[in-house]
Amino acid sequence: MQDYNLTVYYEDTDAQGVVYYANYLKFFERARTEYLRECGYEQMKLMQEGIIFVVRGVEMKLQKPARLDDVLVIKSQLIKLGKVSFDFLQKAYLEKELITQAKIQCGSLDVKSFKPSALPEYLQSSMKKLL
Amino acid sequence: MQDYNLTVYYEDTDAQGVVYYANYLKFFERARTEYLRECGYEQMKLMQEGIIFVVRGVEMKLQKPARLDDVLVIKSQLIKLGKVSFDFLQKAYLEKELITQAKIQCGSLDVKSFKPSALPEYLQSSMKKLL
Amino acid sequence: MQDYNLTVYYEDTDAQGVVYYANYLKFFERARTEYLRECGYEQMKLMQEGIIFVVRGVEMKLQKPARLDDVLVIKSQLIKLGKVSFDFLQKAYLEKELITQAKIQCGSLDVKSFKPSALPEYLQSSMKKLL
Amino acid sequence: MQDYNLTVYYEDTDAQGVVYYANYLKFFERARTEYLRECGYEQMKLMQEGIIFVVRGVEMKLQKPARLDDVLVIKSQLIKLGKVSFDFLQKAYLEKELITQAKIQCGSLDVKSFKPSALPEYLQSSMKKLL
Repeated sequence: MQDYNLTVYYEDTDAQGVVYYANYLKFFERARTEYLRECGYEQMKLMQEGIIFVVRGVEMKLQKPARLDDVLVIKSQLIKLGKVSFDFLQKAYLEKELITQAKIQCGSLDVKSFKPSALPEYLQSSMKKLL
Repeated sequence: MQDYNLTVYYEDTDAQGVVYYANYLKFFERARTEYLRECGYEQMKLMQEGIIFVVRGVEMKLQKPARLDDVLVIKSQLIKLGKVSFDFLQKAYLEKELITQAKIQCGSLDVKSFKPSALPEYLQSSMKKLL
Repeated sequence: MQDYNLTVYYEDTDAQGVVYYANYLKFFERARTEYLRECGYEQMKLMQEGIIFVVRGVEMKLQKPARLDDVLVIKSQLIKLGKVSFDFLQKAYLEKELITQAKIQCGSLDVKSFKPSALPEYLQSSMKKLL
Repeated sequence: MQDYNLTVYYEDTDAQGVVYYANYLKFFERARTEYLRECGYEQMKLMQEGIIFVVRGVEMKLQKPARLDDVLVIKSQLIKLGKVSFDFLQKAYLEKELITQAKIQCGSLDVKSFKPSALPEYLQSSMKKLL
């Protein structure tokens, strides 16, 4: 598990004065990217190898709002790893209180056909250690 | 059920050449808003009455990608109606093929305290007809 | 000149209760796209021909705020047309009052090298009629 | 002058494979916020005092594209300071090369009336040191 910190800016909020619900998915993606970067995952390199990661499913619960200037901590955990798919559990905390969480189901696709394509060996083995 | 049409612009896409996953939640919100507007729901008026609607849960499945210039049709259906909460099933179609769907759980809150607050009577009764 | 109408949704607003400044650039792009579509411009087709349009300069004045549920009318005017560049003047109106305007300088690039590349003949001549 | 670093994620890019033009305005706002935070500027506190800052003008030049995973450095400089308005010059660098720059004209408004309202004394004097 790795912590990713971010600050809430105007761009993240809406007229209710809180973070707009879709934007948690941006926060979670930033955190996943950094989490996987630690495993040797580089999106641009992967794309050149013909592989992209996509999100295929989201189960998100929004429990408490976050506001402008709040600092959120995102904790990401790989919870399932298959050959062409993998799942994360990601949680956003505000001052140690859980405010939003999501299970994110990802898939590995061929960049041209958009059909499932196995995770590269090196990534599969380094991700296995995260489970 | 009501149809909401939208065109995919550059703002909606990402470097994979497809609609960025979080943006479907924007599309679904646009469609819900128009769907409820037909019931006499006006967000600004509601906010002045001290009520806001928030999303408390999302279950989304992304099945096929959408691309720049694609025209999507969003179909929204109210599937559950409580005193302080209500659920939608929303589906995005591209040329009649279902590409993304989501169950969106909404709540009605007091605008100041952010605590659950019953839906206004007039809205409750007009929404009942949508079930 | 062509009118493009849009409604302001939560996604467009921020915690000040108004449309977030960067989002006018999204609105202007939607309007430019529809404006050029009328000239036979199709972005996906163009991209396949190896050409993309990019924005190289923005001069925007934000005079009045727009809020949730507001309906804006965007008027777009091509004001300059060169071989590899063209400028638009775009204006956003709220109930006939000008609220935001921008001069947008666009360029035509080769999709691979990102170097300037002349506008296709058919587009050049149909755009000329817009001046 | 202060440096603000950020990484480009999928959310920032579009189907051209580069950062979407409007998103530089998000980057610049993040950087301005942190720059002013150093002067004792806190947006939420300011909003409670009845003052908000808004952008009234943008002059942006986009010279080179940025891509997924790029790390950008934003340099912000206060270049003008009036009673109800102030201007920034902000520059985005990719590996020490200037890629995008903008002059951003800001105004200080009363949060309710949205009319110009003088900057608080303490902020005015701490901002003066930035010139």
